[in-house]
Amino acid sequence: DQDLLLAAAYVSDAQYNRNVPFETSPQAIRLYHFYNHWTMRAATYFFIWVDLALALFEEPAVFPLPFLVTSIAEVLCLTAFFGRLVHFAKVTPQKVFWKDTKNICVMVTIVLTLIDLVIYASLEAVNIRGVRWSRALRPVFLINFPESRQIRRAFRSIRNTLPDILYVFLLFLFSMMIFSLMALKLFGDRGLRTVEGSPYFTNVLDIAFELYVLVTTANSPDVMMPAYELNWWYSLYFITYIIINTYLFMSVFLAVVYNNYRKHLKNEIHTLAYLKRHKMTEAFNILKVKVGTAFVVKEARWRQLVKVVAPDVSSSHLELLLRISDEGQTGHVDKMNFLRLADLLNIRVVAINIKRHPLETWMPRVYQSSTSLLVQKMVQHRIFVWVYDVIILINTIFIALDEKDSLISYAEWLFLSLYIIEILLKLYTYEPRAYFGRNQFWNWFDTLIIIAALLATVANTTIQARKYNSQQILDIVLILRILRLLRVIVSIQRFRVIVTTLINIGPTMLTFGGLVLVVYYAFAIIGMEAFHGKVHFLDPGSGSPDALVCGNPALKDSAFARGRYCKNNFNDLASSLILLTELTVVNQWHNILSEERAFALLADGFALVTHQAAKLYFIGFHVVVVILIVNIFIAFILEAFFVAYSLEKSEVETAIEKKIQELGVGVQEEEVQDGGLIDHMDTKDSGFSADDGDNRKKALKGLYFRIASKKYKTVDTLLQQMFESEIAPEGKDPSLEEILNFSPKKPNFDNSA
Amino acid sequence: DQDLLLAAAYVSDAQYNRNVPFETSPQAIRLYHFYNHWTMRAATYFFIWVDLALALFEEPAVFPLPFLVTSIAEVLCLTAFFGRLVHFAKVTPQKVFWKDTKNICVMVTIVLTLIDLVIYASLEAVNIRGVRWSRALRPVFLINFPESRQIRRAFRSIRNTLPDILYVFLLFLFSMMIFSLMALKLFGDRGLRTVEGSPYFTNVLDIAFELYVLVTTANSPDVMMPAYELNWWYSLYFITYIIINTYLFMSVFLAVVYNNYRKHLKNEIHTLAYLKRHKMTEAFNILKVKVGTAFVVKEARWRQLVKVVAPDVSSSHLELLLRISDEGQTGHVDKMNFLRLADLLNIRVVAINIKRHPLETWMPRVYQSSTSLLVQKMVQHRIFVWVYDVIILINTIFIALDEKDSLISYAEWLFLSLYIIEILLKLYTYEPRAYFGRNQFWNWFDTLIIIAALLATVANTTIQARKYNSQQILDIVLILRILRLLRVIVSIQRFRVIVTTLINIGPTMLTFGGLVLVVYYAFAIIGMEAFHGKVHFLDPGSGSPDALVCGNPALKDSAFARGRYCKNNFNDLASSLILLTELTVVNQWHNILSEERAFALLADGFALVTHQAAKLYFIGFHVVVVILIVNIFIAFILEAFFVAYSLEKSEVETAIEKKIQELGVGVQEEEVQDGGLIDHMDTKDSGFSADDGDNRKKALKGLYFRIASKKYKTVDTLLQQMFESEIAPEGKDPSLEEILNFSPKKPNFDNSA
Repeated sequence: DQDLLLAAAYVSDAQYNRNVPFETSPQAIRLYHFYNHWTMRAATYFFIWVDLALALFEEPAVFPLPFLVTSIAEVLCLTAFFGRLVHFAKVTPQKVFWKDTKNICVMVTIVLTLIDLVIYASLEAVNIRGVRWSRALRPVFLINFPESRQIRRAFRSIRNTLPDILYVFLLFLFSMMIFSLMALKLFGDRGLRTVEGSPYFTNVLDIAFELYVLVTTANSPDVMMPAYELNWWYSLYFITYIIINTYLFMSVFLAVVYNNYRKHLKNEIHTLAYLKRHKMTEAFNILKVKVGTAFVVKEARWRQLVKVVAPDVSSSHLELLLRISDEGQTGHVDKMNFLRLADLLNIRVVAINIKRHPLETWMPRVYQSSTSLLVQKMVQHRIFVWVYDVIILINTIFIALDEKDSLISYAEWLFLSLYIIEILLKLYTYEPRAYFGRNQFWNWFDTLIIIAALLATVANTTIQARKYNSQQILDIVLILRILRLLRVIVSIQRFRVIVTTLINIGPTMLTFGGLVLVVYYAFAIIGMEAFHGKVHFLDPGSGSPDALVCGNPALKDSAFARGRYCKNNFNDLASSLILLTELTVVNQWHNILSEERAFALLADGFALVTHQAAKLYFIGFHVVVVILIVNIFIAFILEAFFVAYSLEKSEVETAIEKKIQELGVGVQEEEVQDGGLIDHMDTKDSGFSADDGDNRKKALKGLYFRIASKKYKTVDTLLQQMFESEIAPEGKDPSLEEILNFSPKKPNFDNSA
Repeated sequence: DQDLLLAAAYVSDAQYNRNVPFETSPQAIRLYHFYNHWTMRAATYFFIWVDLALALFEEPAVFPLPFLVTSIAEVLCLTAFFGRLVHFAKVTPQKVFWKDTKNICVMVTIVLTLIDLVIYASLEAVNIRGVRWSRALRPVFLINFPESRQIRRAFRSIRNTLPDILYVFLLFLFSMMIFSLMALKLFGDRGLRTVEGSPYFTNVLDIAFELYVLVTTANSPDVMMPAYELNWWYSLYFITYIIINTYLFMSVFLAVVYNNYRKHLKNEIHTLAYLKRHKMTEAFNILKVKVGTAFVVKEARWRQLVKVVAPDVSSSHLELLLRISDEGQTGHVDKMNFLRLADLLNIRVVAINIKRHPLETWMPRVYQSSTSLLVQKMVQHRIFVWVYDVIILINTIFIALDEKDSLISYAEWLFLSLYIIEILLKLYTYEPRAYFGRNQFWNWFDTLIIIAALLATVANTTIQARKYNSQQILDIVLILRILRLLRVIVSIQRFRVIVTTLINIGPTMLTFGGLVLVVYYAFAIIGMEAFHGKVHFLDPGSGSPDALVCGNPALKDSAFARGRYCKNNFNDLASSLILLTELTVVNQWHNILSEERAFALLADGFALVTHQAAKLYFIGFHVVVVILIVNIFIAFILEAFFVAYSLEKSEVETAIEKKIQELGVGVQEEEVQDGGLIDHMDTKDSGFSADDGDNRKKALKGLYFRIASKKYKTVDTLLQQMFESEIAPEGKDPSLEEILNFSPKKPNFDNSA
């Protein structure tokens, strides 16, 4: 059915916020469905990751593979990307395809990579080592396929923030310059000396660098001591500087980034919300039939549509959605309710089958015996939780003690068995399928940790019995043993709330993972091309003289070698990424003159073995990551936390929840999390059966629904909920042209004078 | 007139958001007016500052005075405070007075201080040195007088934030403990050594401290190097730790503080807005008379009221307010317009008298001559600004150069004269009273800097001519010379906007100044009592062996003495405050083992000369200031910036502005700031005279009004504007009981699970 497929494409696009204009010819729609099929998307991501991971196997490699293998893999990936692009070109209008910079970017990158491969191979053939520069372009594929909307949005957010940040940054530099000049005039001619004995504040560039370091507070209060010794009034100069440049400007940076982030996000979500409604209206217009005076969609047609859009939806879930969409049970869905379908599909409704405990079915007499009931009551009691909290506490003390004592290592077995008994008891008391429900994070966590610990401990003991010691397995055992202590969080309500909030914003944070990956990957590749093999880590135990200079005589007597930094190198992808992480965390732009602290030290080390210009690489990375990415991360956490704090259930969710309550099949999420699932359910069940109609019960018998109200199926849903309240829910929709031309409002900074 | 005074008291309370319940007997009202008179408040603040400043003169003193003098001054202050309290007790109902903790606090502090004084004096008499512990209580007076609403609000904000922060902090500590245990198990038995050769990660408390330091990023990456050398997989442990505890938790701290700050502020402002309306309604009910069907206030009565409330309001301003309040010129003010009076009085309206240039009046022929007109045109031209920007640039280069060269020091005179010529030219072109208008910040700045520089340079030259060199004057000359460069900001629109925003939120930031002062003062007094005289700064040039150990043999070979930290001591109030500032900025909880960095170093230094418990003092200060106060400061800046970015003119302001525009007497603030004041005004004037009625012109002839729309007369006004849009402007007001019992909404953290 052609119309149905077209409508389904619109609804599906609305559900996942895809904004791809596609041709409406029958063949194109079929291709479009295929294009959006999860296998195709999974394959694309597979090839993207293979492509990115190639850096692990190429020279300089963690696991070296011949150039022939990696280049064949790369060509394979490129072919896949090209195929995906051709597929996309078939479903989208030609004009749109060629106007989209994303597609152009991908094509150009494919061509450039091929050129680079050919050049490198030719040079290799004549034994000249070329530079595989195109590898730094690989993140382009991650960004530029239509699936990576979130990462692109984050990049757009950065780009939009740049102009405002730039002016604040310039003002900040100006202020630093003013203070530097003041310092030069005040202290330059005094012949003061630092603690190390070097001249103090005599050169304006050195002063500017020292003052920049003071912003990161790394050299406070050392930098002011010589002046302070001279006269305590001079400390006012430094205090003024710190208030203005450290506290005020750093806060203003955050404020500007956060404000821009929020504003542009709002604009985008605004556009998305209108686009969604537009697509749902299109779908409605395709399927509508006239009943009486109004256009509606027939129930049978609606069911077909949902089956096509969400093939894996359960029949009870479908029934629930229909009940909500067709409130009057009129046999058709009106326009208003139809438009909500995309949102309804995005709400994760968990259908809980209330079933008897399997043991009750198999041996009802034993399970219902007074002893068994006592055990069940005991497990459900609060004291049971407290007892295990105390056990965890004792376990903590044992872990902190030295385990050389054999008594303590036997105690480990005791604790393990106690935990296993706990899980078994719980499984005995609660229905296993409910206990391992989809959202029972902590039950899963418990069980997996304990099973893994059991396996690892057994493996470790077996190996030790054979007088062989595997460090890896022992490490895993130790880590698992300590992770078990996290269970305590579950017992403390306030802790659980904070952690749950953090877990809920987790998926959205993956966007930033992607963003960081792109930046890090590009910098790592450049770093590897520029610096690999310059610094080597040689075991200092070997006694080789090279070990003391990291295998490079240029580092002789340098602080880099003295500080045992040899392992910080660009010799493979893993080392490069770790080194870049260190650079991110380092706020230690300490005195380059005294060559003491890490950033300057790392930058200096690599400048020594190559060229002074290498410092530019490090400074560039620092500015990009610390001023932009870290601030955007903070802005994001702030925003996500405010949403988690203040999120009222959105309109659609309230509707679906109301319906569930009306039908008497609702369960509060908290009750499920507390583990008292069955207990409460029984109460509810008996409570409702008295006043509930029979016909309602029949369709949904034995079923309970639960809205995972604070869990977000897609990142876009979370973001839309953030701003939904601020978007006019009713009113005339703008036309498609208007929506697409929504220009983000000009920053209203200019008005604030 | 009794009623008028009572109404005026209500209006004045509404205008300044005072919420003091007062008795309505004639005598009490008169006393209340006197209580609120600015002289009384100024006197109170004078005595508070004298009381706080006493610490400068008491042992250990910056400027020592005999104990008799300081104790007499203190008793004088206490008497003044007591008098103020008695005065307050006379105007407020007895029951309210005794239920107010503020009053109890002040009284208890007065009694405690007297007791302390007597004890100290008696001990002194028998030559025993006592501890003046009551001095740490002095900030109580600053907080607890009704005038310090802002500081109390900030403290309330902190108190309300504490519970939420506490749980996040506990979770943070828990996470640190988990990681510490893991590190102990993973690395404890490996026999690893740090770069300094000390054992690595063998003691769980040391590990916890190292990991806390890693949160501040101070010891990254040094702390991970030994483990990383062992196996690069271990770096994952550190990276996980950094992501969770540095980035995630620190952002969550900020999010929790900011969220709570905003929420509680909102509740308070909510209450304030309703209270204001309540008071204005009371005032209206006193003055109302029935005209027709509605109650109104007669124009004459209204004028009397405004004269009492704001005696210094100009008659033209009064006229404008009346025009706005009595739109229909009916001769009376209705209730709705009357209620707005408090807000209208808070809007700073600048009446600009358009007068001729004095020179034009004195010698019209010369001033209007073609040469003079050419000069005026030149000064008003954009190129004039550019020329002076270039001059500033050249001046900058000259400043950066060494001024030993006599040519350069002559150039200084040249630049000075150029700047003076600029100011004279501007005064020639623009009307001097407009040029030095109340809000012409940059004109004032320019002129004052240049005059001061001129005086200082002349003084310096005179002194130098007598072969005598005054360092102080030279310093001032140098600083003034460089401050001049700030003028460049005015020329760049974007810079000016940012700076103006910062200046606008400046007054509100003073609240935080008060907050910080209270905390610092209390800690400084405690520090002085505990540590004064333990460490001395002796000139190292004196060659005395004591100079190397800061006058205390206990510091022999300590890093404290080696680092030349002797000047960091608690020997007087100024040194103590500077030391505490250093502690705030220090994020260097560096390795106590290697005793290298500042915080640990300072804490260790003072622990060495007294007792290990002294470290608690330093850690307490660090936690209070860094986790609470700094985060609240950032929260405040964020909020203030968002308001400045997005503040739409509030309803009342739009009304007054509309009226000004209607009357044809409006001037845009930007035009005034650009300095093109007269020029634009003339244009406007001629433009309006054609279509404006004569009767309007007559009353306000020659007058122009300007709303300083983004400047805030009181801190409360700014805060109310922040949230005004979120408060229902109309609708039924709650009763006074309801308003006062407004409980701040429970944090809805619990709902976010």
